Amino acid sequence: MTQPTPIVDFVPARYGKAIPVSAGQTLTIISKEGSQVLDLWALGRDDPMEYMSMEHTRSKNSKVMLSVGDSYVSIRRRPMFTVVEDTSPGIHDTLLCACNSAIYEESGCTEYHRNCSDNFHEALAEIGVQFPFTPGPLNVFMNIPIEEDHTIRRLPPATKPGDYIKLRADMDLVAVISACPQDISVINGAEKTPRDVHYVVEG
Amino acid sequence: MTQPTPIVDFVPARYGKAIPVSAGQTLTIISKEGSQVLDLWALGRDDPMEYMSMEHTRSKNSKVMLSVGDSYVSIRRRPMFTVVEDTSPGIHDTLLCACNSAIYEESGCTEYHRNCSDNFHEALAEIGVQFPFTPGPLNVFMNIPIEEDHTIRRLPPATKPGDYIKLRADMDLVAVISACPQDISVINGAEKTPRDVHYVVEG
Repeated sequence: MTQPTPIVDFVPARYGKAIPVSAGQTLTIISKEGSQVLDLWALGRDDPMEYMSMEHTRSKNSKVMLSVGDSYVSIRRRPMFTVVEDTSPGIHDTLLCACNSAIYEESGCTEYHRNCSDNFHEALAEIGVQFPFTPGPLNVFMNIPIEEDHTIRRLPPATKPGDYIKLRADMDLVAVISACPQDISVINGAEKTPRDVHYVVEG
Repeated sequence: MTQPTPIVDFVPARYGKAIPVSAGQTLTIISKEGSQVLDLWALGRDDPMEYMSMEHTRSKNSKVMLSVGDSYVSIRRRPMFTVVEDTSPGIHDTLLCACNSAIYEESGCTEYHRNCSDNFHEALAEIGVQFPFTPGPLNVFMNIPIEEDHTIRRLPPATKPGDYIKLRADMDLVAVISACPQDISVINGAEKTPRDVHYVVEG
């Protein structure tokens, strides 16, 4: 059987995109410039309300940050994405909400600022899916260390240009990627410049 | 103006309960035996879809665990519950999902085991509210330390009998408490015996 041609594409800086990934396929997410973070969600294709959940993932793995071989799970504790390769330092945040309008208002924005939460719903609307809320995302490449006093810090990504993470879909799902529009903090690097997010679906 | 009489009541072991708390009132949750943990949720009374969110709370406070003076916030980053007093060691987990059927199946249960997730929906159904999913709860008194290698541990509560936490409602809300039915791990103490959760609403 011939493998289907890989899909090589990108999510434009500051925008979101829904990407179907079938069971057994891999989604590789590439940090081309080494500075961009992205929010990743996954919904079951049969039942979108079976969504990838960071609180269930932490519980199932007994970890706040996963490594190669570990699986991000759904609210039914079923594997959705398994990490099969990661050339980055392996720093991916499971703790923080997607950025939203309220965050940018707090940061002093007086006009609408694009944000990952709206990108999630916008991307799903493009494929005709309405979702009743914004699940806590996997913040890929986002560098949020936890200190001993329980505080967290927001640092630029530790990735270098070309780093990638490869995730295997464990069920048919719809992935949603938001190329984070954050340009006020250093979450997207010291240059505070949102970039495209490159990805490959194959297998 | 006379203050209304405080409501002194309890949530039976293994069950959930929805408790209206108005802006300015306090909800005091007491660990009578020092061993019981509980899952706590809050929904806005005007708009239940404005719910208390652990991922927004961590983001807003830049902390994974809050202290006296800090506020648990909604998805709009508005304070919902502020910690005004805490006689316990201040260990309350924001990381883990509510226990659900899938967890007890993994633990070997072959018959239905009561769980915090179902308790949340059962308690809301009693007041005529349907909610489309189970938000990540605040796990009051739950002792989940994070190790340097990103793993988490599940320890018995560090509370002593009579310890309490007092939360001030910052808006009119419905709190939901689930007296956690976990009797397989030591999350509810070495005796693995679920207990009632006592509470007071006053002010």
